[in-house]
Amino acid sequence: MRRNKKERQKQLKETIMENPFITDEELAEKFSVSVQTIRLDRLELSIPELRERIKNVAQQNFADQLRSLPIEEVIGEIIDIELDQQAISILDIKREHVFSRTHIARGHHLFAQANSLAVAVINDELALTAKANIRFIRQVKLGERVVAKAKVINKEDAKGRTIVKVKSYVHKELVFIGEFSMFRSNFTETGDKQ
Amino acid sequence: MRRNKKERQKQLKETIMENPFITDEELAEKFSVSVQTIRLDRLELSIPELRERIKNVAQQNFADQLRSLPIEEVIGEIIDIELDQQAISILDIKREHVFSRTHIARGHHLFAQANSLAVAVINDELALTAKANIRFIRQVKLGERVVAKAKVINKEDAKGRTIVKVKSYVHKELVFIGEFSMFRSNFTETGDKQ
Repeated sequence: MRRNKKERQKQLKETIMENPFITDEELAEKFSVSVQTIRLDRLELSIPELRERIKNVAQQNFADQLRSLPIEEVIGEIIDIELDQQAISILDIKREHVFSRTHIARGHHLFAQANSLAVAVINDELALTAKANIRFIRQVKLGERVVAKAKVINKEDAKGRTIVKVKSYVHKELVFIGEFSMFRSNFTETGDKQ
Repeated sequence: MRRNKKERQKQLKETIMENPFITDEELAEKFSVSVQTIRLDRLELSIPELRERIKNVAQQNFADQLRSLPIEEVIGEIIDIELDQQAISILDIKREHVFSRTHIARGHHLFAQANSLAVAVINDELALTAKANIRFIRQVKLGERVVAKAKVINKEDAKGRTIVKVKSYVHKELVFIGEFSMFRSNFTETGDKQ
């Protein structure tokens, strides 16, 4: 069924709000217009493409889940998280992350990605790093994408700390390992963190 | 001896170029004018005050000394350095360094200060971090000044790595300890760094 443009755009907007995962092809069929028309409609209405919408929904879900820090304070982009279990983030190495002379990623950016993921995975209002043992296995270069995988390996050790192990990869190659001992607010603590 | 303003300012500039450590009082005496006049002259000539000039000269000296990275890539401000011996830097904790909710400094900034100091102290063209063991002793808050002191404790260990220990303080209170194992270019290395 054909509609005038204004009417179509109004209904298009409502349709996408109801089902953000609908494709441009499905929309074109639904409104009996070309895919190109749908794209132009989205452009005029400032509705991002499906891939972006999926990403936004996912990020919003992660943002709602995180307890220890706001999602924008995570270094890198979270692509999966189960609190107190595991989390994954990606960081694309750009010019601001590398030594100017060698184009090798600076250690503190890999550390920041891993450490903020170790904070994010904690299911608690307050999570602070007490200790970390880290190893830089191989150099990471400008343009590479680092995938950090955090696993909670002990939710409460003898000192009441949570141990999070983070392994970071470029493609399938291990580039960084960090073991983080995290202080969290819900365990009683009489030590040096008060 | 009195001179007209233009002539005085010309000579003032030359005098400070020759001796950047001359005080405003000494300049006033030399040119037979008030200290206030010297200050106004400096302002018009955009010549910074003595303290700033000392700092600039010092920073330039440090910049010339550093071999492993340009001084602007050091996180924090270097205030003392002897290559392969020891180095000191300060970092003032500002809003961009803290968690928004708690105003506690984020671990990766303390790590970045210490790690970049461990790189800077290396007397070599290439210095990369291989391993680090770190401890956050107490929280550092917005507005605090962190003084990091790096000491080279072993210039070449069994693996050809240089071990640098960094202790960071707020006033005299220890807030962070890190031990960094640094790969450097002049030692033969067949390990995981190629």
